[in-house]
Amino acid sequence: MFSEASARMGVTYPKGFQAAGVKAGIKKSGNLDVAVIYTEKKAAVAGTFTKNAVAAAPVHVSKAVVATHTAHAIVANAGCANACTGAQGEADAAAMQKIAADALGCTSADVIVGSTGIIGQLLPMDKVEQGIHAAVKALSVDGSADAGNAIITTDTYSKAGATSVMIGGKEVRFGIIAKGSGMIRPDMATVLCFITTDADIDGVLLQDALSEVIEHSLNMISIDGDMSTNDMAIVLANGAAGNPKITEKNADYEAFKETLLALCQGISEKIAADGEGATKFITVHVKGAKSFADAKTVGMSVANSPLVKTAFFGEDPNWGRVICAVGYAGVPMNPNHTTVKFGGIPVYADGMGVSYDADALRMVMTAHDIVVEIDLKDGTEEAKVWTCDFSYEYVKINGEYHT
Amino acid sequence: MFSEASARMGVTYPKGFQAAGVKAGIKKSGNLDVAVIYTEKKAAVAGTFTKNAVAAAPVHVSKAVVATHTAHAIVANAGCANACTGAQGEADAAAMQKIAADALGCTSADVIVGSTGIIGQLLPMDKVEQGIHAAVKALSVDGSADAGNAIITTDTYSKAGATSVMIGGKEVRFGIIAKGSGMIRPDMATVLCFITTDADIDGVLLQDALSEVIEHSLNMISIDGDMSTNDMAIVLANGAAGNPKITEKNADYEAFKETLLALCQGISEKIAADGEGATKFITVHVKGAKSFADAKTVGMSVANSPLVKTAFFGEDPNWGRVICAVGYAGVPMNPNHTTVKFGGIPVYADGMGVSYDADALRMVMTAHDIVVEIDLKDGTEEAKVWTCDFSYEYVKINGEYHT
Repeated sequence: MFSEASARMGVTYPKGFQAAGVKAGIKKSGNLDVAVIYTEKKAAVAGTFTKNAVAAAPVHVSKAVVATHTAHAIVANAGCANACTGAQGEADAAAMQKIAADALGCTSADVIVGSTGIIGQLLPMDKVEQGIHAAVKALSVDGSADAGNAIITTDTYSKAGATSVMIGGKEVRFGIIAKGSGMIRPDMATVLCFITTDADIDGVLLQDALSEVIEHSLNMISIDGDMSTNDMAIVLANGAAGNPKITEKNADYEAFKETLLALCQGISEKIAADGEGATKFITVHVKGAKSFADAKTVGMSVANSPLVKTAFFGEDPNWGRVICAVGYAGVPMNPNHTTVKFGGIPVYADGMGVSYDADALRMVMTAHDIVVEIDLKDGTEEAKVWTCDFSYEYVKINGEYHT
Repeated sequence: MFSEASARMGVTYPKGFQAAGVKAGIKKSGNLDVAVIYTEKKAAVAGTFTKNAVAAAPVHVSKAVVATHTAHAIVANAGCANACTGAQGEADAAAMQKIAADALGCTSADVIVGSTGIIGQLLPMDKVEQGIHAAVKALSVDGSADAGNAIITTDTYSKAGATSVMIGGKEVRFGIIAKGSGMIRPDMATVLCFITTDADIDGVLLQDALSEVIEHSLNMISIDGDMSTNDMAIVLANGAAGNPKITEKNADYEAFKETLLALCQGISEKIAADGEGATKFITVHVKGAKSFADAKTVGMSVANSPLVKTAFFGEDPNWGRVICAVGYAGVPMNPNHTTVKFGGIPVYADGMGVSYDADALRMVMTAHDIVVEIDLKDGTEEAKVWTCDFSYEYVKINGEYHT
């Protein structure tokens, strides 16, 4: 398993991957802002992307790479999202591919591109070009932390993780870096998530696994209900672990998928906890639903409610707002059978409030991590949605910027 | 047309209606909290109600009254929503009907009940009973203002209006009182809207007209995306105007419906402008849609976005957040054809930002009333959604209460 002390944490934990992050002068802060992740051995690639109809240029070019099922590299920048930039933006994203490909000795179609930051502004391509060249020169097995820091925006820290699993007698490693929903002014929240693994796995199966995993991890986060123009999650699998290649949905595939899921759920919790201005990390656990989709819909309705989120900021055990958000989720439910618990303490049952130990509930509400459990008593499916509270700081961060 | 100076503004402007509002001690503030509206001549009645699966007891009993198509009275209270109160809550709502019916000399099935306020608490029925008796004694043609004040919660003022139209050579009058989305702590926003008219109209047609009008007025307001357990809009039509009874969807019906629509749209604008902690009144006008439903979906997506709402609080012309919320609304759209204007000034076109006169745009953004115009260039349908901004005060009002 992953050791925090390892210099090779994150995306360089799996065999055969190098990474780097450099300062190219795109961020006004002068911090790291261009990242490259590279595998000399060509990798299977899979990706999931924002469903926003207003998708940024890097999303378009990266989708085309994923369609080929193989890639050598990811190049990403923070500070400028290259979104809402028209034909020039598309050309700039393609130029990022070509600059990286030429420097790495591969082709444009081998290079994923990710961007995050201010929207509606063109990339400073001279700085981007210099940054990519510098990052390629700096590639190293110790470069994951720099790469992670080069993709964050207003995140308070870079999110990274690593893990491993035995498949066919071989240790298969996974690494991840991600940026979360701390928003770059004046942009909306963007999630960039880059995963590496030395597993040997068929590209179509890799896509199946990633799609299922993201649906149960990154797509279960709600910070403010907004969906970015730039969101993407990418996985590169270079086969360096030497495991028997996974070519069907057998036990090896399940082991691969479950490990990927645990990795992505861990990152998702970190992203939610680091939401803008967040003072609370809230897990909305919906049980007793007829389907996972129903459970998720109910959980998202609660997690997206500004009234619920401000109540948690105020440490107020306001079950009325929770049951109200359950009621308008659009999933049929019986208010007289549904129960609500805060931190394991029942607060709503039989269609009304439950008397509770005020001291015990105060301890739940004043903690940083709070679990809201909703049991619809209508089936056996469940889902967990992760969110944070709405604070003065959220309004400040998102309201005080002047374009 | 309605004169502000008239003592008979609001629900007593039409012939044959009386109203009253009294202090029954349900509100902690000691303000007016029980209202009665009455017509001696039996009225056709129609209503629309919250779609929340967790509907309050008064919603259940009032739906049953509407199903009979006739009524004599509305009794309403503020300070306690009688929601999430189980079987006792249902009994209390029925008791409110009976107390009012006995005092007025009609039957329980003739009495609509509305409640708003704290949820999860039982009504103080002794106070409610005294309040209803006092209100019935106080009924007068000058009582609309008191009735309006008796149904508000954290609204900063009572919303009322009146208008008239000529139908079949007779003046047909309309009056309205409403409470808006200023939330009563610790409750969620509740909209109560009571309309009176002296039109003579068939009950089924009255329901058709009201349903269509509410869909284009009250249902176009977004304060924070939450849907209350107690929302209702009721119209009583007592026929005292003496117009030829409207029994089919002819020109008289259209005149009736259009007048009702103007009345309800006016009230809707007032409710949105008085949203909790609001410093801005924002109209999101979506044009060029394939259908009204598409236009509304896009408008609501923009109006519900916390990022858009905090940007307006900050007076930031952040078109990126607007086009992003358009993109994730779920309605197919082409970002390269769509245009966005703030106060008539183009800010987004051809897939990217438009350069603008900064001084002119600053005047738009610093005004209290702001119109956001989104043209999808994809059809001929349109919709207007009304909302307000998200301020520190919103977080304060909704976060600082401790149950």
